[in-house]
Amino acid sequence: MPICEGAFFDYLREVDCSDVEVYSIPEGSVVFPKVPLMRVEGPVAVVQLLETPFVNLINYASLVTTNAARHRHVAGKSKVLLEFGLRRAQGPDGAISASKYCFMGGFDATSNVLAGHLFGIPLRGTHSHAFVSSYMSLDEIPDKALRSKDGSRVCQDFVSLVQEWLQKIQTADSLGGVFGDTNKSELAAFASYALAFPSNFLALVDTYDVMRSGIPNFCAVALALHDLGYKASGIRLDSGDLAYLSIEARKVFHAVEKEFNVPGFAKMVITASNDLNEETIDALNKQGHEVDAFGIGTYLVTCYSQAALGCVFKLVEINNRPRIKLSEDVAKVSIPCKKRCFRLYGKEGYPLVDIMIRESEPSPKAGERILCRHPFIESKRAYVVPQHVEELLQCYWPGTSDKPRAELPSLEKIRSRCMQQLEKLRPDHIRRLNPTPYKVSVSAKLYDFIHCLWLNEAPVGELQ
Amino acid sequence: MPICEGAFFDYLREVDCSDVEVYSIPEGSVVFPKVPLMRVEGPVAVVQLLETPFVNLINYASLVTTNAARHRHVAGKSKVLLEFGLRRAQGPDGAISASKYCFMGGFDATSNVLAGHLFGIPLRGTHSHAFVSSYMSLDEIPDKALRSKDGSRVCQDFVSLVQEWLQKIQTADSLGGVFGDTNKSELAAFASYALAFPSNFLALVDTYDVMRSGIPNFCAVALALHDLGYKASGIRLDSGDLAYLSIEARKVFHAVEKEFNVPGFAKMVITASNDLNEETIDALNKQGHEVDAFGIGTYLVTCYSQAALGCVFKLVEINNRPRIKLSEDVAKVSIPCKKRCFRLYGKEGYPLVDIMIRESEPSPKAGERILCRHPFIESKRAYVVPQHVEELLQCYWPGTSDKPRAELPSLEKIRSRCMQQLEKLRPDHIRRLNPTPYKVSVSAKLYDFIHCLWLNEAPVGELQ
Repeated sequence: MPICEGAFFDYLREVDCSDVEVYSIPEGSVVFPKVPLMRVEGPVAVVQLLETPFVNLINYASLVTTNAARHRHVAGKSKVLLEFGLRRAQGPDGAISASKYCFMGGFDATSNVLAGHLFGIPLRGTHSHAFVSSYMSLDEIPDKALRSKDGSRVCQDFVSLVQEWLQKIQTADSLGGVFGDTNKSELAAFASYALAFPSNFLALVDTYDVMRSGIPNFCAVALALHDLGYKASGIRLDSGDLAYLSIEARKVFHAVEKEFNVPGFAKMVITASNDLNEETIDALNKQGHEVDAFGIGTYLVTCYSQAALGCVFKLVEINNRPRIKLSEDVAKVSIPCKKRCFRLYGKEGYPLVDIMIRESEPSPKAGERILCRHPFIESKRAYVVPQHVEELLQCYWPGTSDKPRAELPSLEKIRSRCMQQLEKLRPDHIRRLNPTPYKVSVSAKLYDFIHCLWLNEAPVGELQ
Repeated sequence: MPICEGAFFDYLREVDCSDVEVYSIPEGSVVFPKVPLMRVEGPVAVVQLLETPFVNLINYASLVTTNAARHRHVAGKSKVLLEFGLRRAQGPDGAISASKYCFMGGFDATSNVLAGHLFGIPLRGTHSHAFVSSYMSLDEIPDKALRSKDGSRVCQDFVSLVQEWLQKIQTADSLGGVFGDTNKSELAAFASYALAFPSNFLALVDTYDVMRSGIPNFCAVALALHDLGYKASGIRLDSGDLAYLSIEARKVFHAVEKEFNVPGFAKMVITASNDLNEETIDALNKQGHEVDAFGIGTYLVTCYSQAALGCVFKLVEINNRPRIKLSEDVAKVSIPCKKRCFRLYGKEGYPLVDIMIRESEPSPKAGERILCRHPFIESKRAYVVPQHVEELLQCYWPGTSDKPRAELPSLEKIRSRCMQQLEKLRPDHIRRLNPTPYKVSVSAKLYDFIHCLWLNEAPVGELQ
């Protein structure tokens, strides 16, 4: 099979998009099926070449942003959400897209260092299991000195201080004497990590055994840091029963706070990871847990529960003549004509309905009654008197026209828009179980137009 | 939340991997769980930084190659498989990875033009629905002349020739007179496409109605091309009942071949697309169909049936001391030590078992009996006398050592290796339903070593 004519690549290099106009719903907006996310106008050959890149760039971005927003919805506003998906994404750039759009959809930080560098997304992570198992014993730590946070003194042997604390924890009655010997590789790794990052000590506690080794080792290092004026960040649980372990860990933190009079120790951040998704977070919420932060990877970036979004690109008008794509499946019939799209808001501030109109029609106006029709079902229609009207498609690439170009906001602003848009929705539209469908409509004029065109284009069947 | 210290990015830019050695099973090999795909040796800090990029680069690549191979397995060797996933991948680079590794796994071509350009993968596609609906009538074709294939004559009005053929088709008794009026936009689009690509006329026939419009329009254009010495390529079906439509289309092609005495017309290539996956191809095979080529997108590149592969990176030895990662879940316990890995082949040429040994042990030899033990289950063990022994891990990055560097073969060669490796497997290992698990083992020495280390590291539980 030949690849293709070499000259085609040269042609692609020279494609000129200066005649093209691109309209789009602002990034970070909540959108609904049937309303076009973009409208692209221009010479047909060039616009057809744009089909695939646009569809590629929109589909996964929209899907993963939505998936992130769904995770935020189920986790609640107070939890910290960390995107840990780099290892499961479609290569390095797939992961970059994932990090960017998960942040947009409501995540707080990523473990993808390049995404932090490129987009300013906060970076968060812990050390690895391999870091823990790379240590054999406490003797391997060469430099054991740690200056106190206020700089006033230096503890020459931080490791001995840690060991003293471990001893106290192991023998404290209020801790129930449940702690026997802990794993010394793990203790060495934690002490070493704390020496390097005394202000950001976040320990992965499940390399050997969470309750018998990870938690007491963590507490010993955290208490030693506390002696020097530092505040440990917390722990990460990456396996096992996260509800149970987080509750047990919290109990220990409370007991330590009381036993050793360390105010705030009970509030240590507990981060959970390990194949989390919407359902597991929902289940954790129902069981009760003490997790403060969730690290979510695989299910988030691969969009496991629905791995693809099916946005398509349709020709709706050419040389001022409308075009329609028919299909046996009504859901696949395209809505013809160059359109303008509006969101109509009700008295209570919620969006009521989206409406598409022909370009030549007047815009809907606040306070004026307008008939909204279902695009395909004749009987479904309603009058609406909007309190507020928002035009959805904005011009982001005016081409050679003199239309003003809409601002491209910062990632941070787009993220805020996304959060705000979700908050503005009526809650029943976004509940997890049986949400009320949001209505998408067309004007009466566009309705008539669609159905007239449809009858013209569709061949009349013959039953035999 | 702060991003991170700026100096960390500078440090990453300067990371020096010249001391690192990388061993890998050759790309395109069949691999089994537990056998390391790579072994990385070097300074612990640098190697730990390599963890995430390696895991990112291996996971999706291995997953999608496997998915492509599974599609090839169910479609059979004789079918043409086209990767159409660009629109559903994780951005442009996710799509490039998908195209490359689907080709490796047995696909024949891609619709991703950049992948063709970068890797020399054959490019294949058809026109779009939008191309069809961009035409209104036959009058829109400005240049209607077409030179015959042998260059001997010019047909001044190819469009009229097409219309004559359409007339003949519509009135031919042997075609059952089932064809009434066809869609003229579609006919114009097909004629225009044929004028531009007379040697590669492949028409998408489902924009309006496959049997009443697409097929007769296609046949008219194909017959007109045939008059001028060209051979049409075929059709693509992108919706509806693909089994039924392909069979009906084939019947028409047979009837046309006979009616108009056009040898080979019945063999017209029928390509099917529209949300295909392993299961739909299997179902088509069971129903019977006349599809020659499958265009597969969403389910292929997103690996819908399993959207992530869980390869991990484990520290197994440091400073000549073995390390083990324990877990409540035995499947997550890592196999310690720097290892060498071998595939042992039996008399019939099939691989029998993979075995991991400690670096210090002698290699297994053809004709010599060796005990292969399950890494964790004491009672599972077997003696094997291999007829042939293949060492799996090859050195691809010798670092500062003087080991020879294994060749990095071309994509075409890796693809062939992948096909050959799959053919060499015993069929019951790769059947779709209840495959026989392939055995992965350790030497007796490594077995003892693992279990000794495990008991040393694991804390003894206490039932209360």
